[in-house]
Amino acid sequence: MAKKKKEVPIVGITVSKEDDFSGWYSELINKAELADIRYNVKGFIVYREWATITIRRMYKKYEDLLEKKGHLPLTMPSLIPESNFLLEADHVEGFAPEVFWVTEAGSSGHLSERLALRPTSETALYQMYSLWIRSYNDLPFKRYLSCQVWRYEGKATRPFFRGREFHWIESHNVFATMEEAMEQVKEDMETTYQMLQEECCIPIIFFQRPEWDKFAGAVHTYAADALMGSGKVLQLPSTHLLGQNFAKPFNVKFIDKDGKEKYGYQTCYGPAQSRNYGAMIAFLGDDKGLVLPFDLAPIQIIIIPIIFKGKEQLVLEKAKEIYNIFKEKYTVKVDESDESVGNKFYLWELKGVPIRIEVGPKDIENQQVVVVRRYDGKKFNIKEQDLEKKVDNIVENYTKEIKERSLIDFESQIECVYEKDAAVEAINNGKIVCCGFCSIDMDAYHCAEVVEKEIGGEVRGKRVNEEKNEFATCLICGKPAECTVYIAKSY
Amino acid sequence: MAKKKKEVPIVGITVSKEDDFSGWYSELINKAELADIRYNVKGFIVYREWATITIRRMYKKYEDLLEKKGHLPLTMPSLIPESNFLLEADHVEGFAPEVFWVTEAGSSGHLSERLALRPTSETALYQMYSLWIRSYNDLPFKRYLSCQVWRYEGKATRPFFRGREFHWIESHNVFATMEEAMEQVKEDMETTYQMLQEECCIPIIFFQRPEWDKFAGAVHTYAADALMGSGKVLQLPSTHLLGQNFAKPFNVKFIDKDGKEKYGYQTCYGPAQSRNYGAMIAFLGDDKGLVLPFDLAPIQIIIIPIIFKGKEQLVLEKAKEIYNIFKEKYTVKVDESDESVGNKFYLWELKGVPIRIEVGPKDIENQQVVVVRRYDGKKFNIKEQDLEKKVDNIVENYTKEIKERSLIDFESQIECVYEKDAAVEAINNGKIVCCGFCSIDMDAYHCAEVVEKEIGGEVRGKRVNEEKNEFATCLICGKPAECTVYIAKSY
Repeated sequence: MAKKKKEVPIVGITVSKEDDFSGWYSELINKAELADIRYNVKGFIVYREWATITIRRMYKKYEDLLEKKGHLPLTMPSLIPESNFLLEADHVEGFAPEVFWVTEAGSSGHLSERLALRPTSETALYQMYSLWIRSYNDLPFKRYLSCQVWRYEGKATRPFFRGREFHWIESHNVFATMEEAMEQVKEDMETTYQMLQEECCIPIIFFQRPEWDKFAGAVHTYAADALMGSGKVLQLPSTHLLGQNFAKPFNVKFIDKDGKEKYGYQTCYGPAQSRNYGAMIAFLGDDKGLVLPFDLAPIQIIIIPIIFKGKEQLVLEKAKEIYNIFKEKYTVKVDESDESVGNKFYLWELKGVPIRIEVGPKDIENQQVVVVRRYDGKKFNIKEQDLEKKVDNIVENYTKEIKERSLIDFESQIECVYEKDAAVEAINNGKIVCCGFCSIDMDAYHCAEVVEKEIGGEVRGKRVNEEKNEFATCLICGKPAECTVYIAKSY
Repeated sequence: MAKKKKEVPIVGITVSKEDDFSGWYSELINKAELADIRYNVKGFIVYREWATITIRRMYKKYEDLLEKKGHLPLTMPSLIPESNFLLEADHVEGFAPEVFWVTEAGSSGHLSERLALRPTSETALYQMYSLWIRSYNDLPFKRYLSCQVWRYEGKATRPFFRGREFHWIESHNVFATMEEAMEQVKEDMETTYQMLQEECCIPIIFFQRPEWDKFAGAVHTYAADALMGSGKVLQLPSTHLLGQNFAKPFNVKFIDKDGKEKYGYQTCYGPAQSRNYGAMIAFLGDDKGLVLPFDLAPIQIIIIPIIFKGKEQLVLEKAKEIYNIFKEKYTVKVDESDESVGNKFYLWELKGVPIRIEVGPKDIENQQVVVVRRYDGKKFNIKEQDLEKKVDNIVENYTKEIKERSLIDFESQIECVYEKDAAVEAINNGKIVCCGFCSIDMDAYHCAEVVEKEIGGEVRGKRVNEEKNEFATCLICGKPAECTVYIAKSY
């Protein structure tokens, strides 16, 4: 099909990520066509094709992993009656300011009860659990939902990071004992490491969140903070030990082996969120655009024919030949558009296609092609006969190499401090502060407020894996330190 | 793990499908644990694990097929401002009685504009198309959404068939000419045949719907009616030629090759719905429970160890051995629960598991196993050494054989009639009536009303594939017949 040559050249990102992260991210979203913020409801955005494909692949990996670990999928209604909400006091208090309410329907006008667009599914699901779970034979009861939730967020919308509607996976589980529930929390943390660090190449640390920062209705909350490389952290998936806090009001009971009726112990976990995608592209991207793990790239190999007058046929045939070598194994595309070669390079770098294969008349003459690796721009001149093997080899190592390059040495980002002034300085230098703290119970809330006001960071909580640093006193009030906490700025 | 023997035996379906379809369907839904209607918002139901797994597989097949045909996925917000709705007059008139409205949010109270929970996405999406589509280079523009929609339905809820929230796929496309748009409609009909007839074994006919029964805002609607075997039909996916009806109010324009700005021609298509699942289980199921196409069964092979005292170890080891033969190729499970063998048979037949393998001490002695095929209950005694080959063979033919058995001879269900009385009799005998009709334009609406009142069926429209029957006059008014139509009762 004859196409008109486009006049306007495609221009890459004009802002440096290091100088202006926010400006860089906005340009990335816009120029790589990942999201459109022009949808005419405040806080709601459109996820475009390129982002949707990758996010779906991420979710599919999560779903497969959850199913491998014994969770089964369910589909729940999106609307929750207001009366369900009122059953768990902390929960309603935590979520009430964020709920969208359906109050009218059809021509008949007002509904008799307000219906919440689910901000999370506990209060919809647990009444069903109460009907389904009968005896210890039904336990452990491990389920998950792949759905979207709505929250009337006050903070500014940022595509994939924060909005009023987002897609996630939530897993909800019931056990016979608190110990088994806690084991599930640990399994969830392993799942998170597997998915975020191994599949998405995002470095994380798990913290037990302070009492004042836990999920509304939970006994404890364990949340993954991603280290964004600038000393700032970003909250990613969290898993919650609910104990019997919901089982009691929602009547989730089972007949135990001893014949007695008991309340179950519950956990819930929000492993996948569009925010994971945001974190991944923000963390891995560079000044040319997206960098994506190989599996998650919508197009994995782009073939660029370098056309010279009179050689069109020859070059396109060779491009097609190369396409045929890889089409069964990878997602491959030949860019036959009539953009300039330079613009094609820019475009597919912007889109984060992991491998570019260039083929022109001279290459054909020399029986070779040029292969360029996106994440580091390295060029390989490869003999045609070796092409398949060499490309397979680049593919095999691609994600591993990104990961090695990107995983920050956590410990080097952390600075132990003993005085408030030192904490302020460390935070200003882009460090994560490690210090003694009176506790992470509600008693310590006033110390946490001082941290926020005077140090300019937030108490992220107690580290879940082994803590090597001990402190005698609380950084703020000077009382004996019950624990070691981490303080950081957050996105 | 030692489990307490359950006391209550599992009982199969107690109602015959032929005698009482409705009672049979309700028992199937309930006993096979496919849906739970006890969710406490009217019209909203929970899809349980077994149904969710199959529906997801159906959707994945649809998504793959749509992508193969050049559609890309998008993710759209669920909420649509009321002002968008008002832009296409027919559309708003058609959907207004069915819309759920969000009017309040958080503690701040009333929103400045009512937001509709999307009943379909045209009015959300096309304003974006107007921003994205620039020139003929962007066309054809083929996209799809996998999402849920909400409709404040007045009719009674029936799980998977009708409810106030359902999951579907909707595809929305823009072309430079009406002809190309019409080609898309034809492609959509092929996609529907492929998915419903080939993958789900549901026989369908496509009709061009009468003017009074088309999609709100469409030029023409083409809908698949499933033949449910009782003369009744059920509307399944439909595809709509929108022409420029939405392009004009939503400003979907492109610069054509001649440099002029023109409105695009649009189509939309709702290929996958939870109703497809309902139709499939209703059509294929029998008095023992579900019958499922092989690919769509959550468990494909169930292995039942026939335990005798003292032989437990031997039998379980053999069961495991058989499991290992198939675990890579199929979804296999060994039922090690302490239900009776009879109950296990009932349960997995109810759930529609395509292949049951029974292994007991005697079989082991004879180096054979018993294999039972679900759809027809046929038993095979198979020598152990032939097991893999024979089971592979059963698997390969399973769906094909269900299809051959289930696809009704369409033509034998249809009766050509020339008088109203004959039509009434044919409808009462469970036939689909074929007859002359003045037209399917709005002028003929009064004739259609007579059909509904006096014949007890509905005019389904003109058959899309070649029409062999011609009639001189309209069955109702006796005026010259412009077309041949089909009349049937519908679910």
